[in-house]
Amino acid sequence: MFGDAKNALLVSVRSGARASMPGMLDTVLNLGLNDATVEGLAEKSGDRRFAYDSYRRFIQMYSDVVLGIEHYEFEDILGGYKDEHDKHLDTDLDAEDWLEVITRYKACVEERLEKPFPQDVHEQLWGAIGAVFGSWNNQRANTYRRLHDIPDNWGTAVNIQAMVFGNMGDTSATGVAFTRNPSTGEKALYGEFLVNAQGEDVVAGIRTPQNITEAARIEAGMPDPSLEMLMPATFVELKAIYEKLEGHYRDMQDLEFTVQEGKLWMLQTRSGKRTTKAAFKIAIDMVHEGLITRDEAVMRIDPAALDQLLHPTLDPNADKELITIGLPASPGAASGEIVFSPDEAEKLNAQDVKVILVRTETSPEDIHGMHAAEGILTSRGGMTSHAAVVARGMGRPCVSGAGSLHIDYEAQTMSSAGVTLKKGDIITLDGSTGEVMIGEVATLKAEMSGDFGVLMAWADDARTMGVRANAETPLDARTARDFGAEGIGLSRTEHMFFDGERIVAMREMILAEDADGRRKALDKILPMQRADFVELFEIMSGLPVTIRLLDPPLNEFLPTGDDEINQVAEAMEVTPQRLRRRIAELDESNPMLGHRGCRLAISYTEIPEMQARAIFEAAIIAAENTGKPVVPEVMVPLITGKAELDNVTARIKDIAAQVEKEKGVKIDYLIGTMIELPRACLMAEEIAQTAEFFSFGTNDLTQTTFGISRDDAGNFLNEYTAKGLLEVDPFISIDVDGVGELVAMGVERGRKTRPDIKLGICGEHGGDPASVTFCHQVGLDYVSCSPFRVPIARLAAAQAAISERLKNDKS
Amino acid sequence: MFGDAKNALLVSVRSGARASMPGMLDTVLNLGLNDATVEGLAEKSGDRRFAYDSYRRFIQMYSDVVLGIEHYEFEDILGGYKDEHDKHLDTDLDAEDWLEVITRYKACVEERLEKPFPQDVHEQLWGAIGAVFGSWNNQRANTYRRLHDIPDNWGTAVNIQAMVFGNMGDTSATGVAFTRNPSTGEKALYGEFLVNAQGEDVVAGIRTPQNITEAARIEAGMPDPSLEMLMPATFVELKAIYEKLEGHYRDMQDLEFTVQEGKLWMLQTRSGKRTTKAAFKIAIDMVHEGLITRDEAVMRIDPAALDQLLHPTLDPNADKELITIGLPASPGAASGEIVFSPDEAEKLNAQDVKVILVRTETSPEDIHGMHAAEGILTSRGGMTSHAAVVARGMGRPCVSGAGSLHIDYEAQTMSSAGVTLKKGDIITLDGSTGEVMIGEVATLKAEMSGDFGVLMAWADDARTMGVRANAETPLDARTARDFGAEGIGLSRTEHMFFDGERIVAMREMILAEDADGRRKALDKILPMQRADFVELFEIMSGLPVTIRLLDPPLNEFLPTGDDEINQVAEAMEVTPQRLRRRIAELDESNPMLGHRGCRLAISYTEIPEMQARAIFEAAIIAAENTGKPVVPEVMVPLITGKAELDNVTARIKDIAAQVEKEKGVKIDYLIGTMIELPRACLMAEEIAQTAEFFSFGTNDLTQTTFGISRDDAGNFLNEYTAKGLLEVDPFISIDVDGVGELVAMGVERGRKTRPDIKLGICGEHGGDPASVTFCHQVGLDYVSCSPFRVPIARLAAAQAAISERLKNDKS
Repeated sequence: MFGDAKNALLVSVRSGARASMPGMLDTVLNLGLNDATVEGLAEKSGDRRFAYDSYRRFIQMYSDVVLGIEHYEFEDILGGYKDEHDKHLDTDLDAEDWLEVITRYKACVEERLEKPFPQDVHEQLWGAIGAVFGSWNNQRANTYRRLHDIPDNWGTAVNIQAMVFGNMGDTSATGVAFTRNPSTGEKALYGEFLVNAQGEDVVAGIRTPQNITEAARIEAGMPDPSLEMLMPATFVELKAIYEKLEGHYRDMQDLEFTVQEGKLWMLQTRSGKRTTKAAFKIAIDMVHEGLITRDEAVMRIDPAALDQLLHPTLDPNADKELITIGLPASPGAASGEIVFSPDEAEKLNAQDVKVILVRTETSPEDIHGMHAAEGILTSRGGMTSHAAVVARGMGRPCVSGAGSLHIDYEAQTMSSAGVTLKKGDIITLDGSTGEVMIGEVATLKAEMSGDFGVLMAWADDARTMGVRANAETPLDARTARDFGAEGIGLSRTEHMFFDGERIVAMREMILAEDADGRRKALDKILPMQRADFVELFEIMSGLPVTIRLLDPPLNEFLPTGDDEINQVAEAMEVTPQRLRRRIAELDESNPMLGHRGCRLAISYTEIPEMQARAIFEAAIIAAENTGKPVVPEVMVPLITGKAELDNVTARIKDIAAQVEKEKGVKIDYLIGTMIELPRACLMAEEIAQTAEFFSFGTNDLTQTTFGISRDDAGNFLNEYTAKGLLEVDPFISIDVDGVGELVAMGVERGRKTRPDIKLGICGEHGGDPASVTFCHQVGLDYVSCSPFRVPIARLAAAQAAISERLKNDKS
Repeated sequence: MFGDAKNALLVSVRSGARASMPGMLDTVLNLGLNDATVEGLAEKSGDRRFAYDSYRRFIQMYSDVVLGIEHYEFEDILGGYKDEHDKHLDTDLDAEDWLEVITRYKACVEERLEKPFPQDVHEQLWGAIGAVFGSWNNQRANTYRRLHDIPDNWGTAVNIQAMVFGNMGDTSATGVAFTRNPSTGEKALYGEFLVNAQGEDVVAGIRTPQNITEAARIEAGMPDPSLEMLMPATFVELKAIYEKLEGHYRDMQDLEFTVQEGKLWMLQTRSGKRTTKAAFKIAIDMVHEGLITRDEAVMRIDPAALDQLLHPTLDPNADKELITIGLPASPGAASGEIVFSPDEAEKLNAQDVKVILVRTETSPEDIHGMHAAEGILTSRGGMTSHAAVVARGMGRPCVSGAGSLHIDYEAQTMSSAGVTLKKGDIITLDGSTGEVMIGEVATLKAEMSGDFGVLMAWADDARTMGVRANAETPLDARTARDFGAEGIGLSRTEHMFFDGERIVAMREMILAEDADGRRKALDKILPMQRADFVELFEIMSGLPVTIRLLDPPLNEFLPTGDDEINQVAEAMEVTPQRLRRRIAELDESNPMLGHRGCRLAISYTEIPEMQARAIFEAAIIAAENTGKPVVPEVMVPLITGKAELDNVTARIKDIAAQVEKEKGVKIDYLIGTMIELPRACLMAEEIAQTAEFFSFGTNDLTQTTFGISRDDAGNFLNEYTAKGLLEVDPFISIDVDGVGELVAMGVERGRKTRPDIKLGICGEHGGDPASVTFCHQVGLDYVSCSPFRVPIARLAAAQAAISERLKNDKS
């Protein structure tokens, strides 16, 4: 019974949140012990050392979690006691030692709080419940939720479980295990345990844990026996339970177990974290095993984590100067400057310096530094240590438990094998092998395994939205196709104007006195621009290509510094004064809201005319060369209403008619517009009378809807997300409530006028999974994103489609 | 019958638009004459001269209007004929002369068109009909419609009327008349006529017309007899008809009549144009005569025309030597010496020298100089540029964007059209027309007659919306009350930070290293700001006052030029480097979308805290002094969602609680927000959970909804309105379709949460009649505008309320 002096029930008080947040929330173990019940426990277990050890653990943990006395105070007491008695390991201490430690612990508590350590077990229980609930709002939990998009308002449950003990002698043990390998996805038991220990000892990485299977032990070359050999009956039972749990939950499980005097207890099961590579393999294997459907397999992959697969690996032919080898805790290779503190990591990252965070071990307070680092290296801790679990979740390469490494925080050095490196020196990690190398080692581009292709094909079957890429260079266009893009959703023609001769002609145009002068300069650009489009159309080989007319303010093409102005003036054979005057004329206080987009096309009709001609002539040439018809989509930017679009459309149609007449060929094309201003969303019904497609430019739409310039937002936007004034940076993930409503309005009104209007998105949001889900829900035909994000968008689009089907099936 | 050689019907073909557009559309008279019918007319009328004169008039008019042959070609022929025959006046020519002129006219047509003048009367008729319809789109009609807000899509009817002839000898005449004096409003027949003439002769001003009444003739000292004496029977008949028509239409009529051989024909009647002064008198007289109701009287005044009454105007009889024309940015006329610096303006003003401040553009640091000047002239910036907005607010005449003006600050000269003026030279501005003149031009003082007060009182009875003013200086606040403002809807506190000591303290705050440093600097501003508010509250004597927290980016308070930076650094005892570094840190690429508004209040909580304290302490003091309770309305700018407002509101409430505790007084106050970003409109339902009032900031809302910075819009916005891409500059009159929908959304959603939420508008639109109508329709509680526009807003609000009542009565 709880509090019974003879036979006390001991409990653990732990969190129970909807989503797993490993190590983020608090736990109190061994609760129910006091000066009376500890004696009962000693008597009943016949093991006084075990009873006092449990009590001192409880005092330490409860004082830390509930009473707010820092952990290190107790470590200092314990260390002091050991020094006095010349003892080194916890196991060197006997029952009498622990009793003395307990006395000192209680004295410490009383001194700090001016009242004794609580002896009333109900008071203990309520204290622990309050603390676990409260831990939902601690800083590391807040950070973790922000990184994993877990809503703050979910909150946590508190579970109270009867305690079992893995530290009741050598027939007791505790462990953590996965039903499949969380790094590779291989179907094999995988895990670690410690004899005569409690769970926290495994996680804390204080002792090096043993393997569960004999096969794993042999592969790892570990000296201590595996669970399979040490406790064969328990191993068989554990295996059966593993299989049952995986079958029931139809997913790879991460379990905690304890063996108390030969009896196996399961403490917890949950879907296990895994690397993206493992996630692919597990999902595909489970489909083949008949455990889950293809749709379920697609739902199992976190689109944001696909980035991991695109991580580089070490070039096998590169020279490597090894300094140490640790555990391959999280795959991928990374190089960077050594830093020893998470704050330092964050600071340097903000300055675009690549860093590797080096720590003896990591704790939840280090998360911001881990996020800022390219990779993480620890000298202690196993494959399931905090560092390993968190790094895998983040997709950061990690080498853990590199035991030979000596880290001196004070001197800011790390040494191994006679070599000492200091802060700022460059190292390279291979998180797939555990190797740590001096200097920067060459890396190879990510290789997409067969599993990737299989599952992405299932995703493509499932999704209903198209996925295009934002690309204008041949390289980008080819990458986009490699990654499965089904067309180009945004080709920013101004990117073609900055090179060599082109910028000269562009500047000539800007300085021209009249339309004729501008036309003369544009005539020089025409053949180059046409050649660009021919190449783009040929690479895309009949897939749709959306080309946006010139968008940025003209000042972007003019020089800025004094030297550059003088040089350019000389090269252009004008006076620096004249050039300066034009620069001043074009100067704007808010260029973002200035003379750009279709406003340029309206003021300088020669520009869209040249661009339209280049597009149409290129379409004819590319169609001839490839034998595939090209249907260019001409996109007019920054429209506020129908009248503007009509004006520019008339010009484009004139040119199309001219080119058709000149070449004797009929040209198929679409004219549409970026919807990137609030007014365009509001006026979509009218605009769709002219526009044959809309592409939502959610970057600019976010800027104007919020009244926030992305270039200037750094000053306050971080503060906003940190203070909870914004849930997420609206430039990263679309603001569904505000910007989203405008997009939904644009969709609805556009379709009202023209039911078959083609609708897409071409802002940065096109590659953000949450935003892709929104795009599906709002009914867009396609998303367009940067080439490297195309796979993410394909998967996110598939998941959105599957979720919708599931919802419809239910209702 | 039409085309009958013996007895031909002649017709006039004229326009019939819904709104009167005097002289803008084309007319063809005497149609139906050809070589055959002219002989019939000669025979039937017994007057060959009359017949041929009519025929030559017809050829001339038809050729001009329908055939596109310029008027002057016929004038040349007629002039040549007269010279050959030594004749001077038209009346010197007899029938044979006209016959010869006709021959020459027809030869001219045939030469120009390579075909003869049309003899088929039906061809003539269709030609004229087409031309009159077509004249709807001629340039002068387009311009007129734009100036008078007449929609292009109304179009015109074409009326075909049988001709009567005022040129059939001395018993015939033609005239134009008003039922009341259109200049003064005096109730007396007013008009002119010519004997033996057609209507165009009166309008064209070729002969000096005679008076209609004998009284007018005597008063004007004209030698030729009045109609009253010359044709007494006709006069009596005309008078009876006049009275009948005015009684029928219940408005002053502008009529055209013709007397053909003693018989009176009425050609046209329409409501007559009148001066604003006359409009007031006529409306009030008609109420007293029982002709119209008070509501109808209120509807008879064009609110936009009130400007005429409220500002000094140029003496129409004075000579003017124009130097340039810019935009009519703020109405009224002013003369003074040219100065190029605001400090100079202030200095000279202190010596009672009247100055005109001439700048390329103005910025907030120039306000003291603008205030000291009689008028402001800028070479850049549009109707809503800083100069224009501030000048209107201050009631200073302003001409902005005079693009042809070249200003040389160094030489202290301005030049345009080959004329160079230097500092100290006198110029005169007409802010109602945009004209800039050399030297002093005589002006007439604004006169607010008793009629003005009477009618405005009726307007106040009729309106349901409140009218407040945007004001922060005591002068503005007093002006606002004089003009009938019922409170202050927007007090821009930053305008209080630019003066003398304050800007020093402000800069100290901006340069402070931390919150403590900022607080120290703000402590210096607190007493000054509090004193400002005390004065404002006392002047407004219990009327509501809305105070907006600091809004502009901090960079606006720092110096810009090298010299100024060095001076300020020295005065502040910091290095120029440090000052420069801070300026660079605060530099933004799009300050409009940058770190301003509530974003400042969130980053630097000391600022809203100081401001809230100043407001609350001032409210207590002013209430004590005046004996009237003060309920300040604290307004948080640039909100995008509820979380931001909650954050700032918590700060304000803390301070209120502190001040209450310190002073032992309970403070009544409201906290609300500017709704000036699209997202704020969309999220209004949530925001209203916190906000006790909304004030729609439609300047910024227009900027973000359109993605147009008003500082930069000059480059293309004029082109947009000229090309018809925008019906009206959305910064002048609210864009009902786009911005208006967002406002309507904000109103509906805000009221959904908080039915009694106070709703107002404080953008420039609050003083624009069309926008005021929109505000009434959308259900705002009040509009707030610059003090000088308050009467306009009162009248427009009354008209909107009356229109709505009329509509409801009908349905």
